[in-house]
Amino acid sequence: MYIALDAMGGDYAPSSTVKGAIEFVKEYKVGVYLVGKKDILQKLLKKYKGENLPIEIVHADDVIQMHEPPSIAFRKKRKSSMHIAGKLVREGKAKAFVSAGNTGAAMAVAKFIIGASPGIERPAIGVAFPTKKGKPTVLIDAGANVDSRPRHLVYFAVMGHTYVKEILKSSKNPKVGILSVGEEEGKGNELVKDTYPLLKMTKLNFVGNAEGRDIFTGDFDVIVCDGFVGNVVLKTSESLGLVILDMLKQEIKKSIITKIGALLIYPAVKRFKKKADYAEHGGAPLLGTKGTCIITHGRADAKAIKNSLRVATEFEKTHFNEKLYDNINHLLPEELKEELS
Amino acid sequence: MYIALDAMGGDYAPSSTVKGAIEFVKEYKVGVYLVGKKDILQKLLKKYKGENLPIEIVHADDVIQMHEPPSIAFRKKRKSSMHIAGKLVREGKAKAFVSAGNTGAAMAVAKFIIGASPGIERPAIGVAFPTKKGKPTVLIDAGANVDSRPRHLVYFAVMGHTYVKEILKSSKNPKVGILSVGEEEGKGNELVKDTYPLLKMTKLNFVGNAEGRDIFTGDFDVIVCDGFVGNVVLKTSESLGLVILDMLKQEIKKSIITKIGALLIYPAVKRFKKKADYAEHGGAPLLGTKGTCIITHGRADAKAIKNSLRVATEFEKTHFNEKLYDNINHLLPEELKEELS
Repeated sequence: MYIALDAMGGDYAPSSTVKGAIEFVKEYKVGVYLVGKKDILQKLLKKYKGENLPIEIVHADDVIQMHEPPSIAFRKKRKSSMHIAGKLVREGKAKAFVSAGNTGAAMAVAKFIIGASPGIERPAIGVAFPTKKGKPTVLIDAGANVDSRPRHLVYFAVMGHTYVKEILKSSKNPKVGILSVGEEEGKGNELVKDTYPLLKMTKLNFVGNAEGRDIFTGDFDVIVCDGFVGNVVLKTSESLGLVILDMLKQEIKKSIITKIGALLIYPAVKRFKKKADYAEHGGAPLLGTKGTCIITHGRADAKAIKNSLRVATEFEKTHFNEKLYDNINHLLPEELKEELS
Repeated sequence: MYIALDAMGGDYAPSSTVKGAIEFVKEYKVGVYLVGKKDILQKLLKKYKGENLPIEIVHADDVIQMHEPPSIAFRKKRKSSMHIAGKLVREGKAKAFVSAGNTGAAMAVAKFIIGASPGIERPAIGVAFPTKKGKPTVLIDAGANVDSRPRHLVYFAVMGHTYVKEILKSSKNPKVGILSVGEEEGKGNELVKDTYPLLKMTKLNFVGNAEGRDIFTGDFDVIVCDGFVGNVVLKTSESLGLVILDMLKQEIKKSIITKIGALLIYPAVKRFKKKADYAEHGGAPLLGTKGTCIITHGRADAKAIKNSLRVATEFEKTHFNEKLYDNINHLLPEELKEELS
């Protein structure tokens, strides 16, 4: 088995990607296509002693930069490392696609070059948020689509269920909720009100509306929402975490005693940061694509790249897409499928 | 001038509301109608030495509980303290309405009993988030409406502008953004794409798309969004703040050294919490209603109630609604108003 890695994507690429790939291959005995500028990658592979391993360099002329407008970059840079990595999956040469590059462009590659898996209309990003209870809550869709329709949210729910049960393994019968503005049935916008009865018709463990505050309690295993809302929640949460630590720092700097205190609690802060950082856990999967697609944070270091490659391997070894297909068949009754089509 | 205070609303009511009202009246020389159960309020007023002040008790038979479904409570409990307080404003006896009770029911009272101010179709909640730069960013609408149309967001922008300029006074020419999933124009859902050109037509200082991460940077003074998204963001942020502190605590408890560190930084944490707690700053106004409506957090203590009454007074003394009306006339060109109608 080979995984196609966009070796040029990410703030610390290509050294992070080459190092991460080498560490991964040594530990997991799975091959990696390093896609990007051949001469640079060859030198790095030599430097980090990655020769004579199942790592193959596949040349790509172009690189999509982190801050390029994704839609333009996707259309204009057809010879980019992302494009070529995506094509390796489409052609069946690689089983999975991993990128820490420009998120929007990576999503476009996954959706338009690799494509949706059978039975799925819209792939969606599932992000596993850390919670108070220790086990994750998966928010899906965290930004692959906007203006989703009720039927899409039903499929997001099945994808989230399958992700929790088969990959995260944090629940055998995942509790599924729909993100809304109040607990009671009937609360919400049109999308929520129209999706609610459809989710009730499924054989999922659907427990009703979830609110913004429920994302971090651990009371839900899966929370479905439109990708616009999910993306805003994801970016708000990431940024708020940093702002809180930053504002605390500013208060701490005001006296020598609080400064000493900060030194003493530093190990706890470090452990906390590690738990809270979803990038650390191997990136977010774009669920419902033909191969496995893992989109990792731009800040990914070699360890995060290795983790993403590991997660991609788990998806493939678990036969995630087959399980997803089975779940669509088992969890959605015929009368619901007719209503959705 | 009198303010109608829902004396029975809030986790710590009625003692928090009676105490808060007494402290407020003594300091600001503005009268308060304490609306609620007469016998209870009379006793408390005596206990806290609030007699012989411009505080009048207005009896209300019923109380809407914090966790009742708002729509049902609003329809069935027409003699509740909230209803009666709202009526005092509608009848012109009070200038402003303040409640720390059931948020949904308070919003219904504001919208359906007090009503929208001239020129406004949908009142909206403006929440001032603390930011890294020290000055607030107002997110509007934070949950008064769902499924807003582009024209509503244009009015939210004018309300937010007026709130920042006249009440918060944190900017003379507030930077207005629209919440979206990417920085570039053209990114977003249908609502954002349709609203963007309308905001460009206004004379507001419209600077384009904002992302979830921009809420806490202080780069925007006003960020407009639909109330569904705004409410999810508000509840997510409140809860994440608490979860982060909680998770940090759990890590700190693991060793004696980090425990000592935590004791030393406690003063900094306390200062930070005070800065971050928007309830501390006097609740969130429902902008665009006929009188001033301040909806305060259920956790509001006497001090927060006093602050809410103070903020209500500022709105009235500033003649907020007149300024809002002027701004609608000045900031929205005729051709835009035609398009919006």
